Amino acid sequence: MPDCKVIIIGGDAAGMSAASKIRRVHKNWKITVYERSPHTSYSACGMPYFISGKVDSSEKLIARDPKTFAEEYDIQAKVFHEVIQIDPGKQKVLVKNLKTNKSQWDTYDKLLIATGANPHKPDLPEVDSKGVFCLSTLQSGIDVFEFIEKNKPQKASIIGGGYLGVEMAEALLELDMEVTLFDRNEYIMKTLDTDMSEDICSKMTEAGVRLKLDENLTTIEADSDGYVNKIKTDKSSYATDLVILGMGVSPNSQLAQLSGIKLCDTAAIQINSKMETSHPNIWAAGDCASSYHLLKEVHQFIALGTIANKHGLVAGSNMAGEEMEFRGVLGTAITKFQDLEIARTGLSEREAKEADIPYETATIKSSNFAGYYPDSGDIKVKLIIDKKSRHIIGGQIIGNKGSGKRIDVIASAIMGKMTAFDLAMMDLAYVPPLSTVWDPVQIAARRLI
Amino acid sequence: MPDCKVIIIGGDAAGMSAASKIRRVHKNWKITVYERSPHTSYSACGMPYFISGKVDSSEKLIARDPKTFAEEYDIQAKVFHEVIQIDPGKQKVLVKNLKTNKSQWDTYDKLLIATGANPHKPDLPEVDSKGVFCLSTLQSGIDVFEFIEKNKPQKASIIGGGYLGVEMAEALLELDMEVTLFDRNEYIMKTLDTDMSEDICSKMTEAGVRLKLDENLTTIEADSDGYVNKIKTDKSSYATDLVILGMGVSPNSQLAQLSGIKLCDTAAIQINSKMETSHPNIWAAGDCASSYHLLKEVHQFIALGTIANKHGLVAGSNMAGEEMEFRGVLGTAITKFQDLEIARTGLSEREAKEADIPYETATIKSSNFAGYYPDSGDIKVKLIIDKKSRHIIGGQIIGNKGSGKRIDVIASAIMGKMTAFDLAMMDLAYVPPLSTVWDPVQIAARRLI
Repeated sequence: MPDCKVIIIGGDAAGMSAASKIRRVHKNWKITVYERSPHTSYSACGMPYFISGKVDSSEKLIARDPKTFAEEYDIQAKVFHEVIQIDPGKQKVLVKNLKTNKSQWDTYDKLLIATGANPHKPDLPEVDSKGVFCLSTLQSGIDVFEFIEKNKPQKASIIGGGYLGVEMAEALLELDMEVTLFDRNEYIMKTLDTDMSEDICSKMTEAGVRLKLDENLTTIEADSDGYVNKIKTDKSSYATDLVILGMGVSPNSQLAQLSGIKLCDTAAIQINSKMETSHPNIWAAGDCASSYHLLKEVHQFIALGTIANKHGLVAGSNMAGEEMEFRGVLGTAITKFQDLEIARTGLSEREAKEADIPYETATIKSSNFAGYYPDSGDIKVKLIIDKKSRHIIGGQIIGNKGSGKRIDVIASAIMGKMTAFDLAMMDLAYVPPLSTVWDPVQIAARRLI
Repeated sequence: MPDCKVIIIGGDAAGMSAASKIRRVHKNWKITVYERSPHTSYSACGMPYFISGKVDSSEKLIARDPKTFAEEYDIQAKVFHEVIQIDPGKQKVLVKNLKTNKSQWDTYDKLLIATGANPHKPDLPEVDSKGVFCLSTLQSGIDVFEFIEKNKPQKASIIGGGYLGVEMAEALLELDMEVTLFDRNEYIMKTLDTDMSEDICSKMTEAGVRLKLDENLTTIEADSDGYVNKIKTDKSSYATDLVILGMGVSPNSQLAQLSGIKLCDTAAIQINSKMETSHPNIWAAGDCASSYHLLKEVHQFIALGTIANKHGLVAGSNMAGEEMEFRGVLGTAITKFQDLEIARTGLSEREAKEADIPYETATIKSSNFAGYYPDSGDIKVKLIIDKKSRHIIGGQIIGNKGSGKRIDVIASAIMGKMTAFDLAMMDLAYVPPLSTVWDPVQIAARRLI
């Protein structure tokens, strides 16, 4: 008999991080993971690069498969198994085998809900036409890849100019498609401010992406074989043979909610810093769970792999009987479009306004490394400080090679409660092929001294 | 009549940063800079890339020349002018025009000493043979370039495996020379620990550099025309037709010392956080001045462009009547050898031992970005924490593209007095082409939790 029976619902980043952590602490606990998709522990963020062909096999996106978990970690990860009910009182879950359609109860001592997020899907007829895709699970990425292989679509429409939309635009351009990207806002990448987003729009337009901003998707039409052939917006209509819906995601928290577990306003499962839910012996982690925003000082829903992994580690640690706290997030994120790296952390100007924090900003243009060094490129850094405390509260960067990950220094400066002066005077690294003598983030900081 | 007469001795990073800062504050102060070399405000760090031909003109290494300073900033930068005496009592300096050999006194209200550093030159006969070079001023870089153009040396010997030695090895390999690098220590790059240095040695050996470690230069020999043709060490002798001396530098503080200005044990000019020397109305900045080491809590001599620029800004600010403090350095530094980026910050293991700080280390190998993404490479991160406080006190990184500048996050973590846990849990940026989901520095930090 095991000392303890752990059940984990969801076998991706958060769930498997927790499972692995628990196994490292307790060799003889029984750990069972139920995952409704065919895959465990994969890099959802890698899908655009698999679809474009840069990554030559979907299997490369899988960090560890169920066989590896079973053999090397003694973790039983059961794919095609969906938990459809939680009974917190009796500490059991009802599990449906999606291949046999049979359900049965399984009991737990400790339960982790790591059910992830669901992509937004517009409530339109024909949204399930062939050639219309959401990207969420690895399987959905494989579906897009196979559809493109088989049907050779020429005109792609991407709905939503967020991270996924931008990455898919790059991927589909590489496949020589005519790419149109729609956004209902007047600019894309709205986690950055407009003055940064404008540069991204210019870059994408130059690269051949047709941007249709301030347009709302109203209709999807399909041919008699069920293949998408047209979309309409509130402004016009467009022939298309591939539609990627990148309209954001919501926490997949319904299962938790139905069992009485408390949700936040954002519909994410409410957790404390130990990833405990409102119910004893039930933890939540990953996209389905909320994250405390360290600057906004509220719980937020942020669906990112980095956070899911940290959630999973902390949940697993606490489930294993250790003590670990997840303190919160800054909303750090990064992507790239071709050779343009795009990153942000902390509060944008818009968010500072919303949070009623008086702020100052500085935006500078510089060089990603010494301007005289071959292939040096541009970088634009925007810094936001609290007007009163002078502490850095946000940063945004766009630029060429080596630009994006500089956001980590700004994130570190926020965490260290540094002022612009502190950042400007910090001892950062310089050599001509890799930096300017004042790092671009310091050039921005100097403007705010 | 100007309100104030400023004299600055030395027209490179520190001196011209100070001059520019003073000019931004005071439009009508008279600012005169005396520089003994032919150039102002150049990137000494860029010389290896000019010598290799990557940067196609030495002029590109000059940020601003005397004409620009005069016309755009009303700063009179007089090149070929060497200050040979300071009279602090009468507030005047004796300046020698190196073209006419005439000297005259000039008075100041405020004086900045920014005389830089002098390269170590072994006390050997024939050290001044043709084909033997120190690299310090831009002119010395031009001299090397011209010597190579004219004499087409084939066998290059580099004495000293520090930053300059490693960078020059890359440069001379690119010029198809047979490169031998000598170091008197058993390993090169001794600001890093041996376990990191070993990897650099392997990489350099693979690339074709002959490493001769634990060998001391004893003799330089020249032919009858005065061209170097052989060097000897305590172990062997080597035919050579180019010798680069990269044996470190000393503060050029003799002028200050002769006028009674106090030096540190390191022979660098002693300054306080406002860059004030022991004498009223005399400041010092750049390689000739000391820097407070924030972890060792002692004044050190560290000759780096990043520090010189910050020194200059702070000195200029205080000279202009504002208040600004230079708090200190961490010893952050970076270089690259071909595609291997090399960086360090804070204390090495060796330095922690010397400072009697009980420590723990973790060293990890990971991937510079997602392992499945094309052209992903290796990264090795070493972290050092204070055993008692758990605070991060040092870091070393070697690895492929995008590895080196991650040292800035470790530097930020040191400045923010973060523990390994704080660093591991920080919200850093991830996208497969630019990072792993746990950034490599966080993977190292996790080992220390």
